[in-house]
Order: sequence, then C-alpha cells, then structure tokens
Amino acid sequence: MGCQLPVGVFDSGVGGLTVAKEIMSQLPGERIIYFGDTARVPYGSKSKETVTEYSRQIIHFLVSQGVKVVVVACNTASALAVDTMREEFNIPIIDVVGPGAHTAAQATKNGSIGVIGTEGTIRSGMYNKYIYNLNPDLNVYGKACPLFVPLVEEGWIYDTVTHEVARRYLSDFQGKNVDSLVLGCTHYPLLRNLIRDVVQEVLGAGVTLINPAVETARCLKQLLTGNDLLSGSEDVPEHTFYVSDSAEKFRALANSILPCNVIETKDVAIKTFE
Amino acid sequence: MGCQLPVGVFDSGVGGLTVAKEIMSQLPGERIIYFGDTARVPYGSKSKETVTEYSRQIIHFLVSQGVKVVVVACNTASALAVDTMREEFNIPIIDVVGPGAHTAAQATKNGSIGVIGTEGTIRSGMYNKYIYNLNPDLNVYGKACPLFVPLVEEGWIYDTVTHEVARRYLSDFQGKNVDSLVLGCTHYPLLRNLIRDVVQEVLGAGVTLINPAVETARCLKQLLTGNDLLSGSEDVPEHTFYVSDSAEKFRALANSILPCNVIETKDVAIKTFE
Repeated sequence: MGCQLPVGVFDSGVGGLTVAKEIMSQLPGERIIYFGDTARVPYGSKSKETVTEYSRQIIHFLVSQGVKVVVVACNTASALAVDTMREEFNIPIIDVVGPGAHTAAQATKNGSIGVIGTEGTIRSGMYNKYIYNLNPDLNVYGKACPLFVPLVEEGWIYDTVTHEVARRYLSDFQGKNVDSLVLGCTHYPLLRNLIRDVVQEVLGAGVTLINPAVETARCLKQLLTGNDLLSGSEDVPEHTFYVSDSAEKFRALANSILPCNVIETKDVAIKTFE
Repeated sequence: MGCQLPVGVFDSGVGGLTVAKEIMSQLPGERIIYFGDTARVPYGSKSKETVTEYSRQIIHFLVSQGVKVVVVACNTASALAVDTMREEFNIPIIDVVGPGAHTAAQATKNGSIGVIGTEGTIRSGMYNKYIYNLNPDLNVYGKACPLFVPLVEEGWIYDTVTHEVARRYLSDFQGKNVDSLVLGCTHYPLLRNLIRDVVQEVLGAGVTLINPAVETARCLKQLLTGNDLLSGSEDVPEHTFYVSDSAEKFRALANSILPCNVIETKDVAIKTFE
C-alpha cells in the first residue's frame, strides 16, 4: 500500500519550509521527507540547465527514499525544471507555480496581476504562461527581487533596509494597477508583513498578497485523494530533513519557521546523489 | 619549459576577476586560465567540507588544462580549503589570505586591524591566525558582511541602500580604533569608494583600506621568478575564461571589471569536473 509512504518536498534551501508548513497544516497525517540543497543555494540566479540537473539529482534521491509524490517547493525549479522532470520520472510531481498562477487568476478582480520572484523565475515567464493559459484577458507584470533572499537569510525581516529595498522593487508596479501580487519565491512569505506595508504605501490599499503554498498543499491533497494515496494516519508523523550542507544552521532556521521542532537534520554528502 | 604554461586562477564567481586584473597589471606577459564557479556561487555561506570539495574539483580541472601554478582568488576558499589542497596537489598554490594578512600587518601603525569578509572567511578566523603568526602583538577584529556580495551582483555599487548596509556593518568596529581594514572578499574592492566614505563617516579619517589582490599578484611574481617560471613573453596573451554556469552574464560583468575585453567565455558542464 503506497499510502503509508512519505511525501518528498525539496527546495534550494530553507524557503521551501513555508510550503512544508502548509502541508503539515492541511495534511497533518502525511510524513514529509524534506531536502534542502543548502550546498548549492541559491537557484534564483542560475541557468535552466543547471537548475534542471540539480532538480534531477534531488528527485533521484527522494525516489530512492521511497516517496509517493514529489513537491517542488521552489519557484525557480518549478519554473525552469518541472516540465522536463515530469517527462523523465514516473512519479507524480507537484510544483508551486501552477497553483500560484491559479490562485492569482481567481483572486484578481481588475485583471491586473503582479508577480515577484527570483531572476530565474521572472525571466522564465512561467507565471505569465500559466496565467494566460487560464485566462488570456489577464495582464501579468513580473519583477525580479534578487536581494530579498539574502535579506531573509541575514534575518533582516522587518527592517528599514529591507523596507527601502522593497519600496524600490515594488515601485516598479506603480501605474500598472495590480490588485493581486504573487509571492513567487518560497522565501517571500517570511517577509509578508513588510511587503504588505510597502505595497500599501507605494501601490495603495486593496492589493491581495498571494502565497502559492496554500494552493500547492490543496493540490497535493487532491492528488493524494484522487489516487487513494492519503495516509489516513492519526498519529503525528516524524518528518525527516536532509540538507546538502550546514545542517546546524538549517535546523535553527527551520525551527523558526515550522510549527514543530526539528530535532535532527541529516547532512547528505553531495557525492551520494551526483 | 614550464614557463610558457598558463597561470590558473579561480573564484566562486566573478569576484576573483579583481585578482586577475591585478595579475594582468603586474605580470602582463602571463596567460591566465580563469575559472568562475558560477553554478555554485556563493561559497561564503557554505561549510569547510563543501568549499574544500568544490576547490578540489576546480584545481583538478585547472591542472588538466596544464597550468603551472594555481591562484585561489577567493577568500573563502583560501581560508577554508587551501591547507588541504596544498597537501593533496603537487602544484604551487597561492592564496589571497596570506598576502592580505601580510599587507595588513605591515600597514597598521597602532596594531589594531579590522577584517571584513564572508561568513565562512570570518568564522574560520584565518586572517587572525595569519596575522598573529606574523606579530602576536596585533589585534584583529573580524566582521562578516553577507549582503555585500548580493548588493554588488545587483549592481548597487554606489547606492543609498548599500551605504546604509555598510554603515551598519562597519559601525561594529567603533571603539576598536582600527587603522587598517582588510577587504577580505574579492567582491569588496568593487565597493571600495563607498566603503572608504562610510569608514570615514563611522570610524573617522586615517583608516587604510587593504586589497589583498595587490600583494597576491606580487607573491605570484616572486614565486614565478624564484622557480624560473616567468613567461617573459612580450606579446599580449590571450586569456581564457571558464564558468560552470551563465557564461553570458559572466562576460558582461567581466567586461566591466577587467582592463581587456572578454570576447568569449566557455561554459564547462559541471559533470566534466565532478
């Protein structure tokens, strides 16, 4: 019975834990195997070829751990690698861009949507493609915000410097009349309070912030239900966290994001999956 | 005759070009093979084990290209990996931390030295160790500045945000009476005008900024001279630039740093040297 198998979740680092958190909340019986590629973080500035190769290696690793489904909890990998991965692997793969685009298309009232993300995600235009596919009348404006990830990692979450950086990036949407803004990088929900305030300042009231994690977890639930793969367990599962580097640092950050305490993280030598 | 062989230079990305530039200036007859590990940049937040493994792979690659000497133009790799690399390889290896420490120890008048660098470089304490070895009476104060590299890569070189970030980092040296400040990351010389102004503001006049690249190129010259390996060529050599990702982006940055135009960069599949 595949339903007792774990759910594989991966990200370039710690950001995907915002997706893991949402899965734990919506699917509390599912056991998660998380992989954070902390040795090669960030993905946002890297090419399609490199991000695809890294994703391939990690999905191989997760499959070797016996997962029943893979959640790509990284917008850059979702935008650049997921199509190729779905061709190469025989396991269901859920990404975050599709669900994020779906939520945005439903949320907008005036048809004008903003997307913020890494260089790789924005340059790929994947949010635009998904949203146009859902409704070709919608307008999508993208803006890369490369300093947000290092600012989160520096811990300057609600800070005057981060505020000024956000003001500069988000002013790019002035005059575009967006009423929905997709947080198109899994690190960004950690900045949501600051982003909400800056959006109000530079774009006015009435802009909805969209965190793709919520819809991603909902898609996962549908997929597991549809394939009769829900664990149905009522015990609190023991999740496992693998990283490719700096397990200690990862654990500290993980404990500040997740609703449960991460007791142990396992350092996986990169060689084992290359 | 080994003297016609090229000099290998590597860095995690584009920062090491500030060292390559200094080598071109002091040793205009030497042909350089540069490797920028743009697929796995940055090194500054990564562990000793990971940075050592990456350095090993790159030195193998440079040796396979027939270089006569390797210059580790990355402070993090110099601080974390060079000792191990010197044991493993039979080729002379020059780092940037030793020369930087040497210059700082000579420059200080009051015996109080500041060092700024990545998390990995500062945590390693290698600048302190080198400087204490030269003169145990000197005091060394380190400060990690993890946002400087992403700010340089965003191109916010002389900018109010970068100014505020620098003010915050450099204020850490207040009351320590430093008269010399080592730019202990090869990206930082690109911020030297801003750093100079902020140092003057928060620490007062009379602080000397130290760029280890100058002394590194001088060490290289000594080593080549001492081993009778100077090329002696009067032709302008053709340098070669390899990267592990995003050759186009690298070329654009390289052309803004180097005194010559980089006509071509070669993308090396990471697999070929792993």
